[in-house]
Parts: sequence; structure tokens; C-alpha cells
Amino acid sequence: MGKIPDSHPRKASLLARAKLTQAGREGLLAESAMIAHGRGEAFDYLLGEKTSDSAKTAIKECAARLLAAKNPIVSMNGNTTVLAGKQAIRAAAIIGCPIEVNIYYRTPERMEKLIAALESMKEKIAAEVDEETKASVMAVEILGANADGKIDGLEGPRSICSRKGIESADVVLVPLEDGDRCEALVALGKQVLVVDLNPLSRTARTATVTIVDEVARALGEMEELLLQNPQPTDWDNQKTLREALEIISDSSKRI
Amino acid sequence: MGKIPDSHPRKASLLARAKLTQAGREGLLAESAMIAHGRGEAFDYLLGEKTSDSAKTAIKECAARLLAAKNPIVSMNGNTTVLAGKQAIRAAAIIGCPIEVNIYYRTPERMEKLIAALESMKEKIAAEVDEETKASVMAVEILGANADGKIDGLEGPRSICSRKGIESADVVLVPLEDGDRCEALVALGKQVLVVDLNPLSRTARTATVTIVDEVARALGEMEELLLQNPQPTDWDNQKTLREALEIISDSSKRI
Repeated sequence: MGKIPDSHPRKASLLARAKLTQAGREGLLAESAMIAHGRGEAFDYLLGEKTSDSAKTAIKECAARLLAAKNPIVSMNGNTTVLAGKQAIRAAAIIGCPIEVNIYYRTPERMEKLIAALESMKEKIAAEVDEETKASVMAVEILGANADGKIDGLEGPRSICSRKGIESADVVLVPLEDGDRCEALVALGKQVLVVDLNPLSRTARTATVTIVDEVARALGEMEELLLQNPQPTDWDNQKTLREALEIISDSSKRI
Repeated sequence: MGKIPDSHPRKASLLARAKLTQAGREGLLAESAMIAHGRGEAFDYLLGEKTSDSAKTAIKECAARLLAAKNPIVSMNGNTTVLAGKQAIRAAAIIGCPIEVNIYYRTPERMEKLIAALESMKEKIAAEVDEETKASVMAVEILGANADGKIDGLEGPRSICSRKGIESADVVLVPLEDGDRCEALVALGKQVLVVDLNPLSRTARTATVTIVDEVARALGEMEELLLQNPQPTDWDNQKTLREALEIISDSSKRI
């Protein structure tokens, strides 16, 4: 892909695609990653490629629940690391929680590459910020290499997790989760906070709080909202899904 | 991907994804193929992953126009060959027309592989049917290797086609076409029949008849409808697009 002019109305979307294509070549992604991304692109197109007020409320709720958690964790996969790794690290630094690399199609090579990518992002962020922030960024532990935990209710490689991370967490922020794993985590009594562009997906409908938004925008917004120290509310997740569907529904009248 | 249980509610969608992933590994697809497929998946999700009555009417109209054509052609690219090659061959056998492999990112290797894939599908279908059908299936010519034609109004590799195929056709069935080429074909006075899951795309809005449906379902349905020998009607393509958008819009009530 050549250079995308600043004036291009869909520049962010095209840049995200270029980043993923490059990461795919470097072996960071599963084969299905591009399909998942394309699905996201279509939903984001229908959502107008911006964070809705409704999504902003969901992001604030997630920020509040992560701050109030005993053992919060941010779970990252290939696509989210490539698209929003830096935002996730900055959010985790404010929350004061680790990040766990946890991928559906688990191979040692991909795990290693994703952990290395996040460690290198930490260094880059640390080089740009003040001393206090730098310390909190460098303190964000990247878990996942030790597969010493298990998600009860799942079988095979998908059940693997870190004991110190997802296994012992009470609140899990997990962008782009698959439906089975989301259900299993909820069944274990954890609060599952997801970012999913498809408001009809099983993940979106099963989660405790669903942010219907593009992951880099959502986690960028979360950084800001975490600093406002919000409080958890009595959350109606169905309402946020209905609001997202209304936006999609309205966009279909654009013809 | 492991074996998908028969009971899985989205088995067809997951199988399609597995097929494409495999074809990607074998070099049949362009790099952007997976993203395009993911975008389609999202729209199909909103359409309820089934052929609507409105889409069925469009499929019947396309069947009628292909049967009434002087020089009909079915144009196939990488994704459509992988997802619906067999359905296209069976439809072409009933119509009595050739299939042309015509791809946006043209390389000799991909052209060769796609033509070989279709030839091998012909053999497989022929082994399963009666003698008369077998003869009509084996008679379906797979064009594309000879790039001796041109689509006027386009430049570069995208303008290449077969003289005996798209260049001389009056009716072109072209699933998953790009907007520019669809416009150029329409400008040449050809009837352009497309299969596109996004009713808002330029292709969907430019085509003579737009089938808003998943390509394997649409071409499978077409086989059946061709046998009913339908007649072309005075077609309102805006109506079929509006109906698809209404279904997408109504999907917001599914929750």
C-alpha cells in the first residue's frame, strides 16, 4: 500500500489494514485474523467509524469496573496487540494491572512475538513520558509465557491461561473475544468487559459490559476516562447493544 | 481449524472461512481476499445468514436474463472460485455458457491455479452425475488463460479479459465485482448481474441486477431456478437494494 494522504476520509481504517497486513507477514497473527478484521471494518463502516455517545458510556463503565476490581487483567490477542497495544499498555499503567497475551490459535512462536511486541511498545511509550508515568508503564507486567492456568469449562489450547492473570482475575477486559471463551469466563463468575464491533455477536450479548467500538479508539478513550476516576453503575448491557443496533439501522437508510 | 460440529449454528460460515484460509495457503487468493471475506461475513450476519425472499427474486431474474442472453458469461475470481466454484459450474452447465477466470490482482500463477481448481471441480461434479449432465458439465469451457480481450474504459491489468468471454458477452454474471469494473461493464452496454452482500457498495448500486446474498447460497439457489426456465421482467434494482437494507435495519430488533 502506498502513502495514504492525510485528507483521505478513511485514513485511520486504511492505516489499520496496512498495519495488520504487515503484522501478518511478520507472523504475529492467526490466519483468520484478516477475516475478523474485515468483519470489524464492515461494522465500523455502518457505525460511521466513530465512537458513539453510547459506546463512550460503556467505556466509562469498563474504566470504573477495572479501577474497582481486586485483580483486574487486560487480555490481548494478535489483532488487538497490533491495533491497540500502546493504548492497552497506557490503560493498564493507570489501572495498575498486568496484561496477558492470550490467543485462540496458540503457538509458542506467536506468543513469543506478541509478548516481545508489547515489551517493545512499553519501551517506546516510556521514552515519551515523564518519570512517574514511565515507572508505571514499565511496571505493567506482560503475562502469557507461563501457561500455568486454566479456564474451567473449556477444552484444549483455548483453555490455557496464566494463573496470575486471567485465572485469578475478577474483572477481565478482553477485546475481540470469541463467544465460547466469553461464556466460560462469565460462567466462572468473572466480570467480562469486551470490545466488539458486532453488537449481535455471542460475545457482545454474553459479556457483562460490551463496548461496541473499534478497539484502538475505545482503548484510547479509556485512557482519558480512567483519569476521571469513574464509579461503577447498575449497568444495562442490553440497552447499549440496542443503541449500537439503532446506529447501524439508521446508517442503512443512507442510500 | 478443527472439525466443526454439525450442531454449530454458524457451521456454513465457519466452513467457508476454513476453505478460504486453506486456499490462501495454496496461493489462490490475493492478500486482500480475507479482509473482503470478513466484510461479507459481517453483512451476511446482519442479513441473518439466509437467502431472503427479495434475494430469491433477484436470483430468479438473473437466471432468466442468463437464459435469454446471446452470449452469457460467468466471471469468477479467487474468493468465488473457492466458495462457490462448483455451484457456478453447475449453473453454467445448465445455461450452456463458459466461465471466465478474471481477477483484480492478476498474476500468471494465480490465474493458472484458479483455472486448474475449476477444471478439477468439473471432474468431481462429472463423477457424481448422470451421463447427460456429465456431458454438459464437461462442456463448460474455463476461459481466462488467453488474455486477448480488453474492457474498454479501464486501464492496466484490470482491463484484461478474454475476447471470447467478457469482451463479447451481452450478459455478465460477476459475483463480488469491484466498483470500477462494474461501472465500465455497464457503460459498455452489457447487463451486469452481481452478487454482493453490501447493498450500499458502488457495485451493488451500479449493477443491472444485484443479488444481495452470500455467493454459494445464491449460486446454489440459481441452479434450481434455472431449471424452472424463468422469463426476464422489467426489473427495479433500487427496490431490491431497499429491501436488503430493510432486513439489515430490522436485524436490530433481533436482540
